[in-house]
Amino acid sequence: MNFHLTPATEGLRSRLFHIIFESDTPGAKAFDIALIVAILVSVAVILLGSIEIYAERYGDIFFYTEWVLTLLFSIELLVRIYCLERPLLYLKSFYGIVDLIAILPTWLVLLVPGAHALVIVRLLRVLRIFRIFRLMAFVGEANLLIDALKRSLHQILLFFFSILMVVTLFAALMYTIESPEAGFTSIPMSMYWAIVSMTTVGYGDIVPATPLGKAITMVLMLLGYSIIAVPTGIFSAQVIRSIREDRHSEETCPGCGHEQHDKRARYCMRCGTWLDEDSEDPRKKDEEKQDED
Amino acid sequence: MNFHLTPATEGLRSRLFHIIFESDTPGAKAFDIALIVAILVSVAVILLGSIEIYAERYGDIFFYTEWVLTLLFSIELLVRIYCLERPLLYLKSFYGIVDLIAILPTWLVLLVPGAHALVIVRLLRVLRIFRIFRLMAFVGEANLLIDALKRSLHQILLFFFSILMVVTLFAALMYTIESPEAGFTSIPMSMYWAIVSMTTVGYGDIVPATPLGKAITMVLMLLGYSIIAVPTGIFSAQVIRSIREDRHSEETCPGCGHEQHDKRARYCMRCGTWLDEDSEDPRKKDEEKQDED
Amino acid sequence: MNFHLTPATEGLRSRLFHIIFESDTPGAKAFDIALIVAILVSVAVILLGSIEIYAERYGDIFFYTEWVLTLLFSIELLVRIYCLERPLLYLKSFYGIVDLIAILPTWLVLLVPGAHALVIVRLLRVLRIFRIFRLMAFVGEANLLIDALKRSLHQILLFFFSILMVVTLFAALMYTIESPEAGFTSIPMSMYWAIVSMTTVGYGDIVPATPLGKAITMVLMLLGYSIIAVPTGIFSAQVIRSIREDRHSEETCPGCGHEQHDKRARYCMRCGTWLDEDSEDPRKKDEEKQDED
Amino acid sequence: MNFHLTPATEGLRSRLFHIIFESDTPGAKAFDIALIVAILVSVAVILLGSIEIYAERYGDIFFYTEWVLTLLFSIELLVRIYCLERPLLYLKSFYGIVDLIAILPTWLVLLVPGAHALVIVRLLRVLRIFRIFRLMAFVGEANLLIDALKRSLHQILLFFFSILMVVTLFAALMYTIESPEAGFTSIPMSMYWAIVSMTTVGYGDIVPATPLGKAITMVLMLLGYSIIAVPTGIFSAQVIRSIREDRHSEETCPGCGHEQHDKRARYCMRCGTWLDEDSEDPRKKDEEKQDED
Repeated sequence: MNFHLTPATEGLRSRLFHIIFESDTPGAKAFDIALIVAILVSVAVILLGSIEIYAERYGDIFFYTEWVLTLLFSIELLVRIYCLERPLLYLKSFYGIVDLIAILPTWLVLLVPGAHALVIVRLLRVLRIFRIFRLMAFVGEANLLIDALKRSLHQILLFFFSILMVVTLFAALMYTIESPEAGFTSIPMSMYWAIVSMTTVGYGDIVPATPLGKAITMVLMLLGYSIIAVPTGIFSAQVIRSIREDRHSEETCPGCGHEQHDKRARYCMRCGTWLDEDSEDPRKKDEEKQDED
Repeated sequence: MNFHLTPATEGLRSRLFHIIFESDTPGAKAFDIALIVAILVSVAVILLGSIEIYAERYGDIFFYTEWVLTLLFSIELLVRIYCLERPLLYLKSFYGIVDLIAILPTWLVLLVPGAHALVIVRLLRVLRIFRIFRLMAFVGEANLLIDALKRSLHQILLFFFSILMVVTLFAALMYTIESPEAGFTSIPMSMYWAIVSMTTVGYGDIVPATPLGKAITMVLMLLGYSIIAVPTGIFSAQVIRSIREDRHSEETCPGCGHEQHDKRARYCMRCGTWLDEDSEDPRKKDEEKQDED
Repeated sequence: MNFHLTPATEGLRSRLFHIIFESDTPGAKAFDIALIVAILVSVAVILLGSIEIYAERYGDIFFYTEWVLTLLFSIELLVRIYCLERPLLYLKSFYGIVDLIAILPTWLVLLVPGAHALVIVRLLRVLRIFRIFRLMAFVGEANLLIDALKRSLHQILLFFFSILMVVTLFAALMYTIESPEAGFTSIPMSMYWAIVSMTTVGYGDIVPATPLGKAITMVLMLLGYSIIAVPTGIFSAQVIRSIREDRHSEETCPGCGHEQHDKRARYCMRCGTWLDEDSEDPRKKDEEKQDED
Repeated sequence: MNFHLTPATEGLRSRLFHIIFESDTPGAKAFDIALIVAILVSVAVILLGSIEIYAERYGDIFFYTEWVLTLLFSIELLVRIYCLERPLLYLKSFYGIVDLIAILPTWLVLLVPGAHALVIVRLLRVLRIFRIFRLMAFVGEANLLIDALKRSLHQILLFFFSILMVVTLFAALMYTIESPEAGFTSIPMSMYWAIVSMTTVGYGDIVPATPLGKAITMVLMLLGYSIIAVPTGIFSAQVIRSIREDRHSEETCPGCGHEQHDKRARYCMRCGTWLDEDSEDPRKKDEEKQDED
């Protein structure tokens, strides 16, 4: 099933895999840091390029920096694909898609003339920083948080749903009480006001004008102020549970690059590759035995 | 006590009951999804109908959609009533009232000419989404949250009461310190300002003007910022307790449609109907025995 | 040491004590409800009296209502003093002072002509509701919260102190960066802005104008947004501990009216009176024995 | 290695050490209170001096107060250095740097003419209050909080990083949707708006104008409102853990003034000095033994 490569090529791939996907050797760490710097620079270029004064003055520098970085990111992606045994699985994973999104917009500008509007897509390369972060020291912690979020997702969705219902009811109420002059021109506009008030943001662009409207606003604000406790309570309980039951491994699969394995896992949960590089896959032994028979 | 129906009718009722009240068969799931879509469409019609441009342009579509949906909801309610053994108990329950409220306003518009102001009541059909939600995957979670809320209710009421007292005292203080020009025209108006400040909403429509007023505002804001911890602390503690002691069942009573039973319950806590459909009610055996004697 | 009263008077005092200080008999409950209503009415009169339109229209009604209520509260206080064995200790306690504060301002208006500014002090009678509340169903819960607050007080003070230091440093920073035109006219004014921003209130009356000021504001807001977790974390931990260790009694001392006793307490922790009314104070037996000897 | 002093001088140093670094004798407590008052006065002078009216009226008083206090703080620092056995280690520690920063700005004004801009650095003396606080009753509590913060630091950094990424994406989105007239002039400016909205501050200086922008804002506000739970959840879990595992000592090292020792520590973790003043350092015994041999 695997490519049968010459030992030398196999060695190069294995070394590249270690540098790019792991972070336990000096080379791998240097690569991680270089990648962080490149990502931060590319984001800074996008941010500063949106400020008119800087765009006029340093437009050329921004343009060339972006092209150099896009080239580097493209090469990096090719190397990533090269050193994985199942590259298609990687490209379909979250980080593979992020990698593609991070370079596609700039290439599109070259090919399609009017693609300058893809600024937002270009911004998606910010997501790449997550990869680095995960490779560094935070693996356990991030997994803990993701675990707790997964566990509380159902309850937090239910909570959001309830909030939307409360918001809709209060919005309809205020729409009939307050006049359009105060800003309550429609129920959706009232919903905007209700969310601004309930989340305690309070821009002040729409504000109740009548005494009754003010009284209802007080109730809404106190409600929002106190039910902020609900997601906190749910999430706290789940974090406490996650800390108690944590057993994530920092292993990266040499097959598809998948990283969130259980500590007791011996095969990749996504592609079935043998994870323990220090010993031999017992399946191979069995196959060899069968070949001998 | 029960209606004595022919087996065929009894079978139809039982099948309808399963489709409408449960969600474990394909038919039941299809019904749930259709109901969700109908409810969301009816809410969207109300929201968009309040925007003047859309109301002018699509007024007719909105009008006919609402009538079709109201007819569907009315039929659904009749079927619900038909397949329950104690329909009156259902109509008096929370969901029964919600079902009635969801269709009454549109019918009223037909009968009473000037009933267009009932927009808000029409909005109450949003509450119906809760039914669907509960039927789906979230039953356990919702019950957990409701449990934790019930347990922390006394303490959270006490907390609200204390906040209202603090708000009243600060409002009276600011009313004497600040001038009416700054917006502090009466104690109730100052209370509105105090709640806006204490819940960290901060519209900015009323703002202290004097140095002393600003100093008091700082104290109030820091107070509000830190006692936001109180409901969170109470609720967190109760959620942790609820998770530990959870024992809700997903059974629906075939008698009255009641759903929040204890896992160990054998009879409906509301109407006494035998809950376990796979075995026979021991009471019946006793009755038969008595009949034989 | 105790007054030696005739049995009849003693019985009247004991009955009055039960009606006023406890809430386990129909008479006592009626008294509590009457007191709640009276307090709410007196607060409503003060609030509505501050709105100019109502003050002009219903000024007389407000005036007479307040006098009637003040008379009633005065009589109530006299009865309270009458049925306690150590009335001075009661007058020095928190609730005794609150009772005095609730009636003094109105009497002062009669004696001192220009005492109308005492509106705020008059508002303090709101605090009296706490007494009722505590007598009702919430005793245990309130004690739990008070316990948790006492335990987390040191840490929350430390937290506030740290916040004030952060606020002072940011205020000084913004005072040098931003111009007085933007509202940063002095360091104390900048502190007002910093607290408005850090507590996430955000009135918008003072807002940074320079890019550097905006950058610092972002840091301050993110700081405030995330350290809101600190009091919550402290308080949650303490509430959980308090729930575990709860052992408050609902006993009221017949000597001084003190109420927060330990469940195992046999004598009042404040005046030493024997708490268990169903049995006899062993000290008395000892005294009698000594008398006999 | 230690200075060999005459017994009398040694006694003076030891007594000064107790007064300045500990707080368990009347003299030490008096010193602490005097220091608190001096620090608060010096901070008050800086704050009031920034208000123009006060600066004009009381400028001279402020000037002389500051000089007197700076002299006192300088003497205090010299005495601190005198009574420690390893003063350089102290000067390199957090509190040593704070002590230096607290007096340097005023001296600089004397030496360098145009150094009046160092107002902010002068403010750093606020940090000195921490020393006092720690000496008082709060040692254990502060250590608990610092412990919990250290433990949750990685996770909270990860959380901040995620927030910055969300903020950047939303900012880029709003920059393309909203016009510069509404205030969204560049992506960094949109980021300022996104942080103001997500942290629920809501100044209202930049506000979405288009319906689509308002819809995105609602999502961002609800997101910010609910992920406020994440740091709270992390921190709560860690505070609970810290309370369980607390074992900090209140000992101060007579060698370098370090204070956060483990309860079981016998030697200073920073300079190796013997901590237990009531018994003799076993190392000395060994040395004496070796000398005898």
